[in-house]
Amino acid sequence: MVENSIVQFERSLKFERLLNRQYAMKLSESTSTRDRLIEAARDLFLQQGYSATGIAQILREANAKPGSLYHFFPTKEDLLIAVLESYTQLLWPLVIKPVFDRVSDPIERIFGILDGYRRMLQLTTCTKGCPIGNIVLELADTHPHVRELCATNFTGWRKAIEGCLDDAANRLPQSVDRIDLASFVLTVMEGGVMQARAYQTLEPFDVAVLQLRDYFDRLLDDGTTWSTQTPPNRIDPE
Amino acid sequence: MVENSIVQFERSLKFERLLNRQYAMKLSESTSTRDRLIEAARDLFLQQGYSATGIAQILREANAKPGSLYHFFPTKEDLLIAVLESYTQLLWPLVIKPVFDRVSDPIERIFGILDGYRRMLQLTTCTKGCPIGNIVLELADTHPHVRELCATNFTGWRKAIEGCLDDAANRLPQSVDRIDLASFVLTVMEGGVMQARAYQTLEPFDVAVLQLRDYFDRLLDDGTTWSTQTPPNRIDPE
Repeated sequence: MVENSIVQFERSLKFERLLNRQYAMKLSESTSTRDRLIEAARDLFLQQGYSATGIAQILREANAKPGSLYHFFPTKEDLLIAVLESYTQLLWPLVIKPVFDRVSDPIERIFGILDGYRRMLQLTTCTKGCPIGNIVLELADTHPHVRELCATNFTGWRKAIEGCLDDAANRLPQSVDRIDLASFVLTVMEGGVMQARAYQTLEPFDVAVLQLRDYFDRLLDDGTTWSTQTPPNRIDPE
Repeated sequence: MVENSIVQFERSLKFERLLNRQYAMKLSESTSTRDRLIEAARDLFLQQGYSATGIAQILREANAKPGSLYHFFPTKEDLLIAVLESYTQLLWPLVIKPVFDRVSDPIERIFGILDGYRRMLQLTTCTKGCPIGNIVLELADTHPHVRELCATNFTGWRKAIEGCLDDAANRLPQSVDRIDLASFVLTVMEGGVMQARAYQTLEPFDVAVLQLRDYFDRLLDDGTTWSTQTPPNRIDPE
């Protein structure tokens, strides 16, 4: 009787383990299908735009069935929202952190982030551009929730630049509004990427960054008053 | 016999006139259908993008028949090309001339042109944006001829700014590359319009223009050396 129970218990454990394994497999399968759908959509939206991308093409690229798409993303817009959320999550590990790990000067960190966009343009021979900027111009007027997510993404980007400017606050003139200046850096990045795509050459992007660098140099010259002023209670070494 | 000839001649004249009138009517009808198609497409592409706009919708808005569309524009891309050519033609009379008529200072003309974009954003509650910028980000990678026309349009815009900078050359530091600075003004305009659309408020556009103004102020301060230098052979009035 006891032995029987143990056997039953073992059997039920085995069964549970089997169930768990199946559930885990199912779960991992689901996760990867969902991820594959997001990745395929991310690539296609970036390559050819949202409206020009058909559901059939996403399914083909993701190697997924219509049922699984509609299970995870009832509408095409839901899939775009997941793509935009993934960009928000990737901002720090993919765009900001690699630069911050390499560069310590806060002003150079800003130009390091801009250089990341230059590399991306170079790698793609000035195609694709900034995925958020593309979506803003294509859908901001017709998809309010999408527009909001793009704005959230922009805000995250701008805040990273703001942080750098805060760290360099003592080198900038007091008149500088650091939130405005960070917003301007985003403006220059997006406008520069757009022109690089229009002319299909890095030159207008490089020109934009060089002009921004000139502006920063003039701000830093103006902010760094210590080189032109004698400290009030200066103590000479001897 | 002569009388007969005169009657015949008059008849033929009348007939010719009739033909001419019919031809003229036909011509004017054709021209206006073509124009209506371009105008409808221009509005729809600007409102909702190129890929999201269907041929049926363009025909409905233009009050035109499929035959007339395919007569003038065998493909949707041909229609877009006509739209882009119309923007190139409208650049001077619609964007540049009204500002140049009102403002004479070359630097203020640049900010007058930027203010035109502000008005457009204000009138549309920060929707629509710059039609060329929208098309660049949507189609540059997939429609090479469209991309080239957008670049031509950008070049025309930049050259107008370049002309202003040339007129103010003696007020700018010699180190300034006026072609680069003009390209930077376009970068700031496009990036500012994009952010205004993303946040659906004028603020980021205004911030971008203010920062650009600050940059110009610093350049002009630097360029205007007469206020800080004493001319070598200065003659005092008394």
